[in-house]
Amino acid sequence: MNTTTARTITANDRVYRVPQEPTVVFTVDGGDPDYFDDALDRAIMPRLAGMLAAGGEYRLGASEMPSLTNPNNLSIVTGVSPALHGVPGNYCRLEDGTLELLNDPKFLRAPSIHAVLAAHDVPTLMVTTKEKLRRLLGHGGVPSISVEEAAGTGLPAYGVEDLQDLVGVEAPGIYDWDASHYAMRLGLAIYRHHRDLRLLYVSLTDRVQHATAPGEELSDRFLVAFDTLLGEYLDEGFTVGITADHGMNAKHAPDGTPTVHYLTDVLQDAGVEVHDVVLPITDPYVRHHGALGSFAWLYLPESARARARAVLAALPGVEEVWDRGDAATIYEHPVDRIGDLAVTAAAHVALGARERDHDLSGLHAALRSHGGRHEQPVPLITSRPVSGPLAARYRAGVLRSRDLHDLVLNHLPNHPPAPNE
Amino acid sequence: MNTTTARTITANDRVYRVPQEPTVVFTVDGGDPDYFDDALDRAIMPRLAGMLAAGGEYRLGASEMPSLTNPNNLSIVTGVSPALHGVPGNYCRLEDGTLELLNDPKFLRAPSIHAVLAAHDVPTLMVTTKEKLRRLLGHGGVPSISVEEAAGTGLPAYGVEDLQDLVGVEAPGIYDWDASHYAMRLGLAIYRHHRDLRLLYVSLTDRVQHATAPGEELSDRFLVAFDTLLGEYLDEGFTVGITADHGMNAKHAPDGTPTVHYLTDVLQDAGVEVHDVVLPITDPYVRHHGALGSFAWLYLPESARARARAVLAALPGVEEVWDRGDAATIYEHPVDRIGDLAVTAAAHVALGARERDHDLSGLHAALRSHGGRHEQPVPLITSRPVSGPLAARYRAGVLRSRDLHDLVLNHLPNHPPAPNE
Repeated sequence: MNTTTARTITANDRVYRVPQEPTVVFTVDGGDPDYFDDALDRAIMPRLAGMLAAGGEYRLGASEMPSLTNPNNLSIVTGVSPALHGVPGNYCRLEDGTLELLNDPKFLRAPSIHAVLAAHDVPTLMVTTKEKLRRLLGHGGVPSISVEEAAGTGLPAYGVEDLQDLVGVEAPGIYDWDASHYAMRLGLAIYRHHRDLRLLYVSLTDRVQHATAPGEELSDRFLVAFDTLLGEYLDEGFTVGITADHGMNAKHAPDGTPTVHYLTDVLQDAGVEVHDVVLPITDPYVRHHGALGSFAWLYLPESARARARAVLAALPGVEEVWDRGDAATIYEHPVDRIGDLAVTAAAHVALGARERDHDLSGLHAALRSHGGRHEQPVPLITSRPVSGPLAARYRAGVLRSRDLHDLVLNHLPNHPPAPNE
Repeated sequence: MNTTTARTITANDRVYRVPQEPTVVFTVDGGDPDYFDDALDRAIMPRLAGMLAAGGEYRLGASEMPSLTNPNNLSIVTGVSPALHGVPGNYCRLEDGTLELLNDPKFLRAPSIHAVLAAHDVPTLMVTTKEKLRRLLGHGGVPSISVEEAAGTGLPAYGVEDLQDLVGVEAPGIYDWDASHYAMRLGLAIYRHHRDLRLLYVSLTDRVQHATAPGEELSDRFLVAFDTLLGEYLDEGFTVGITADHGMNAKHAPDGTPTVHYLTDVLQDAGVEVHDVVLPITDPYVRHHGALGSFAWLYLPESARARARAVLAALPGVEEVWDRGDAATIYEHPVDRIGDLAVTAAAHVALGARERDHDLSGLHAALRSHGGRHEQPVPLITSRPVSGPLAARYRAGVLRSRDLHDLVLNHLPNHPPAPNE
């Protein structure tokens, strides 16, 4: 039951309209614009095409750096950069030198929009594919569920005893191609069970995108199934926003060999002292990418940095190397959770630490990954035309994915004017 | 006479408090943070140090790409990115294929904060060193003057018959080391003549920064004179903001030879068809940099782009290469005024077109320049402590220079709460 009387709430200094109709944001993990462009060209996503033909809009926007899952999901749900929400990677080194997976809510420094709504008794829901992300997104009292733990788990907040029973279909494993679609099904099932739900966030997984390029059979199957479920949400009257946490690029040679610079090896071979090479793509699910992405943090003595820069500059496909202070400014990162140097790689180049520590034997296919600047552009799609103060920047393609909730809650028609601008 | 009764104005969808006390923003052309850090370390800027000790703040922020004069001055005075104000360079190619210096107000797509204030009868003033920038900044009815044209020019809006007479000192030439300081003197002189002035913008020139690194004699002389004049503004009771349009880096080898990739030559030698290499640093004042900076736009047939990318990827110090659509999103650029490909270079590498077309004989010293990502970090300095909704981002060093007027007008103490957040 929606008991709130507030018309707006404020989260992290932005004002959001409290949605009066069901609203959902989908984050397609690894949903590079290339997938959507190709699918629309070949007309295999009729519901998406119909939504756009009926006034919805599709523009590009930018995700956060590094272009990874955790920093971007948190920016999308908080509306702020990693500098403010505190999570600049899936993994990082803390000031005391410990290496941490950033999956624990204790690392969060900003509440989600959903948590603020929940505190005002507005019914919200977070659905993730993987359990690791559910813990972060559910922080602050937001009802949250994951595909990974759907079997045998209930959601007492909305009177659900067993999620899998509610969906009526057995939950797939998180490496199955349709794990993402089960997350979409979970959101729909809960809404049909509890129609007071006002804001849903559904975060998919990029297992298919890591394995297949646009136009490949598995990718098509993923997008067609996404489209069908999108249609079900539209038929239920949802206002819809769609984005991606990051894009995706091939990081391998034509013969399938990964194109990787192993930075610990390279620097040590050159006689440069390095304490740590931290790869923020690292997560517990290594079969997607073998912990190889296009971004790395180096920890090394100050006396070694000039030499490290010279060695890095000579590596083809290494793009940017930033000192900590500049990296914090340029990437909007929390300065206490990033390296002495930040390194990015080109679209088709990945960065590793020690070659012997990266197990690529479990990869589903030739290496496709993300983490760098070239996976920053993402789609920002809305189910109705955008108006109001963000419209010009949206149409110019220069919003950030962290603006999507502002766009969807405050800037679609039949809404009162955006309260904060 | 300040006849306005408005307490706030709205410019480009941001609300600004109408200043009740004299307020000035200085844009130090090429004012890389390295200059200020070094000067503060060596205690040669006592007024700046005193301002910071008394509660003022100095943080890093990011300028716009390319890190050049025109895009950044316009972002600072409009509060929006080049995507919205329309000026992504000092120079660009238009859709009809013509090459244009972007010095004419007809290219502007957004009004300045100052123009909106002026329309509400709030006394404002733009002071530039070079006339080319005065025309852009003065657009929309803002009283504007330049050092270049100070002699023999009046400012009827404020009852001034001859600017040089008002200052009482002969105006220097625009290549003189102290041309910037004369701009600061002009602002002071007009304020002392017309104490109703409420918002001044004073934009300096980077002739000294192009020629000398932090700690060199001429650079010190520049900063010491800046500091003395800053003190005069503080003594007059001004609220002060200081930033830079871009940073500055050496782009030469230890022996003084410029480190340049001449892209037209490189691509033609590789058999790649290229229609135009457009260098947006180009301006009528080539003695600073010989039109060599760290950013270039390429215009070339679609069929040649993959090959061009491969050739560029093999050049040491070429960092990013973006397609037009991605470049617009990543750099927040107007898509109709940028190239088919956008190319950036490393901190110490510059990009040219044809070697024979760049006349470096007039350079004041070994090449120092800007235009790339590595000249994006700039100082954001305020004369009083920052509070309110931008404070967390400011302290994290992740604001943009386009946020400086918001910071100075809405977020310093003894001000009412910021109206728009």
